[in-house]
Amino acid sequence: MAATENIGSIDSMSDGVQFFEGAEKLLEIWFTTANSNHKTADLRKIPRSKLESLMKIVRCEIMSFVKNDQIDAYVLSESSMFISKRRFILKTCGTTTPLLCLEPLLLMAEQYAGFTEVEDIFYSRKNFKRPDLQVMPHQHFDQEVALLDSLFPDGAGYCLGAVNRDCWYFYTLNPMPQTRLPARSPSEEADQTLEILMTDLDPEIMSIFTKEECLNATEATKRAGIDKIVANMVIDDFLFEPCGYSMNGVTKNGCYMTIHITPEPDFSYVSFETNIPSSSYKEIINKVLDTFNPGKFTITVFANQQSPTKDTSRELLLLNQIGKWQRRDVQMCNFKNYDLIYAFFCRFPS
Amino acid sequence: MAATENIGSIDSMSDGVQFFEGAEKLLEIWFTTANSNHKTADLRKIPRSKLESLMKIVRCEIMSFVKNDQIDAYVLSESSMFISKRRFILKTCGTTTPLLCLEPLLLMAEQYAGFTEVEDIFYSRKNFKRPDLQVMPHQHFDQEVALLDSLFPDGAGYCLGAVNRDCWYFYTLNPMPQTRLPARSPSEEADQTLEILMTDLDPEIMSIFTKEECLNATEATKRAGIDKIVANMVIDDFLFEPCGYSMNGVTKNGCYMTIHITPEPDFSYVSFETNIPSSSYKEIINKVLDTFNPGKFTITVFANQQSPTKDTSRELLLLNQIGKWQRRDVQMCNFKNYDLIYAFFCRFPS
Repeated sequence: MAATENIGSIDSMSDGVQFFEGAEKLLEIWFTTANSNHKTADLRKIPRSKLESLMKIVRCEIMSFVKNDQIDAYVLSESSMFISKRRFILKTCGTTTPLLCLEPLLLMAEQYAGFTEVEDIFYSRKNFKRPDLQVMPHQHFDQEVALLDSLFPDGAGYCLGAVNRDCWYFYTLNPMPQTRLPARSPSEEADQTLEILMTDLDPEIMSIFTKEECLNATEATKRAGIDKIVANMVIDDFLFEPCGYSMNGVTKNGCYMTIHITPEPDFSYVSFETNIPSSSYKEIINKVLDTFNPGKFTITVFANQQSPTKDTSRELLLLNQIGKWQRRDVQMCNFKNYDLIYAFFCRFPS
Repeated sequence: MAATENIGSIDSMSDGVQFFEGAEKLLEIWFTTANSNHKTADLRKIPRSKLESLMKIVRCEIMSFVKNDQIDAYVLSESSMFISKRRFILKTCGTTTPLLCLEPLLLMAEQYAGFTEVEDIFYSRKNFKRPDLQVMPHQHFDQEVALLDSLFPDGAGYCLGAVNRDCWYFYTLNPMPQTRLPARSPSEEADQTLEILMTDLDPEIMSIFTKEECLNATEATKRAGIDKIVANMVIDDFLFEPCGYSMNGVTKNGCYMTIHITPEPDFSYVSFETNIPSSSYKEIINKVLDTFNPGKFTITVFANQQSPTKDTSRELLLLNQIGKWQRRDVQMCNFKNYDLIYAFFCRFPS
């Protein structure tokens, strides 16, 4: 998130204009085992030194860390990483290269954690503001898909939203009928994710996330009201020099939330993500919008059939306006285990 | 549809393999007027000679023609054209260039027909089997979008289905909130379109659509059972030399259906399209699948709020199997005036 202090990232100075790509690449992998190891297998057995070498490949660093029985939550120099028993989440912004860590990660998951199989994978990102500044394989979604296809025979890539405006790319496993596997019992646990990706943010709110305005992250978290969005989160926050903000929140039962802020007016970007279950995300969505006041945002909701969130998709399908924001696009997809809803909103002209 | 006799099309002979791109580019434009001309304005006032020069730009020719009070229906050397009072539909396969006729068409619509405005536009196509054989601006969806964007400030391009497998590209007007116009009364007429795009077809059925098997189009239409799919259609059909088939059907009240067949086993392709209103397309879909027995197919349904078809979207959302075909992808989108559903099915392995 740090616009100038981040490590390993190449910010654009070539045309004399400072730029930082806030939009993250988000990788979520669910592991399983074909054998009887599934009780003892645990991704948190991967040694810290191995994670650090993984982050070198991605071109970022671990800045901070909190954990509980359910989940390890890392703040990175570019966004966040969450590791629980069988789920690995890596979310990195700037010019990081998270897909390059896939092969070593799969090896580590087998060697240290005891996982032999990938049950599901979700890779997604918003369209970049400056795709020309990315490095291989993140310069084009086709490149990313080609790399993923080389590892996963049943993968499928999608583009939701308008390809010539704001859109959101997504890759997951979606086997053809002949290779469709019977649903595995582990996948039957409830799971859901809400993500809100915001651009054109309120400059006054964004100024909170600078060292000029706030002494430290705790102050920024309180002044912005981030601690009020979801209750009962243990918060690990980080305010970058001279600006930029990241936070992870975790609950006792292993849920997480994460917020990353690129505050510069020319390329302001805020992302919010959580997996807390809810039969309606309306309240959280409203709190996030009130907190950051974006000009435009995308909402994505994933929910499987076991999730209490599965009805929120229908809610979003009917919602063609949220306060001062009007919906411009809405799309729904059904995948192997999940339903996905994508919606894009713009503020009404004032 | 004709694999070798088509006019103006460049079939692939460069690698010594005969190939014909069955997948059509489908352009549908609804015109309106900003002035009081809307009673007298009529696209059918465009002289035949002007339509012929338009088809030269597209690189095809008019082969056959039927008309009634509501609609003019043309069989083309590559697919079909339907012209009614304010709606223009051009569907062309092979290496035709329908988007190149847009600017001259808009001029003709004003000069001869009295239409000053485009109310809505729908451009769509399946992914090509051999995109490398297409010519500008049809080599890539990005090219097509760039051309359309140069003419329509409010256009948005979408890709439904998996970008790395079977997918369907689509462009329409989807204004941002600040330019959103109040719904115009003409758009309040009911409208709907069902399209089924089939590949990997049954070779025995495909052999019907060759001059070896059938003397003429009438025989092919009857033997395949095409005249049984939708009742009360006046049929204009054409059997190409040595193979390939096209048909248009029109009803007295101006509805149409159209089928185009590329029968060669290496690149077999059949498209079915109709705008007849129905509260359920299940029966038509089943008849089409029974008639052609495809290995894979996409279904798209457009319906506006006035259409009795609007509930068929929900029907398709729930339908994860049709007979021996299993759904692999389903997506739903809401646009300015229309809801769209896209679904992709594959035959179970036998």
